[in-house]
Amino acid sequence: MQKVNVAEKMNLFTDYFNPRILGELNGQQVKAVKFQGEFIWHHHDNEDEMFLVTKGSFTMQLRDKNIEINEGEFIVIPRGTEHRPVAENEVHILLFEPATTVNTGQQQHELTRTQLEKL
Amino acid sequence: MQKVNVAEKMNLFTDYFNPRILGELNGQQVKAVKFQGEFIWHHHDNEDEMFLVTKGSFTMQLRDKNIEINEGEFIVIPRGTEHRPVAENEVHILLFEPATTVNTGQQQHELTRTQLEKL
Repeated sequence: MQKVNVAEKMNLFTDYFNPRILGELNGQQVKAVKFQGEFIWHHHDNEDEMFLVTKGSFTMQLRDKNIEINEGEFIVIPRGTEHRPVAENEVHILLFEPATTVNTGQQQHELTRTQLEKL
Repeated sequence: MQKVNVAEKMNLFTDYFNPRILGELNGQQVKAVKFQGEFIWHHHDNEDEMFLVTKGSFTMQLRDKNIEINEGEFIVIPRGTEHRPVAENEVHILLFEPATTVNTGQQQHELTRTQLEKL
């Protein structure tokens, strides 16, 4: 059993929209991801998804509003809810979601990532 | 759907070892808690538990070692593992654990908290 330093893990990769697994518990995974630019509209049929910003900020676009999420803030996107993260500048995020969660949800897309690296 | 600012929520209470619920997803809860002093030795039979420090630091005592968890670090305590958090100074922590988790695990104790407040 070891502790995890989030910033150290973030320093181990530079690409965007490609989550890494930092931990697992109760069938859930803790993932580290960096965003910059626009992701795609998608939803998850069976998974609620939590985004916690550890550095920077981004905008969570929903169909009816935009929410700016800053460092030290989180949002939970309930299953079925369409969303699109957009980051003007690089942002570091911890994700908490079931191990079954695919980053692009129901969409098959060039940004889809499976077989995530464990850091 | 609203974002949550962790530091703002931490400012809403001052007592120790009394978790508040900040969010729920996938049968899990996100809780805010402040520690100062020594908690009790306990374990959780059926729940893995994650501690993420957002301010300060504390020591996670395990039966075979102590691990200091600093701001921006987390640790996952697997179910069945005896542990005792000890904080020399006030520390702010986000907990991620199943909604069924009781803070003192299998122990009934004066520090046991149920019916947690939602912030």
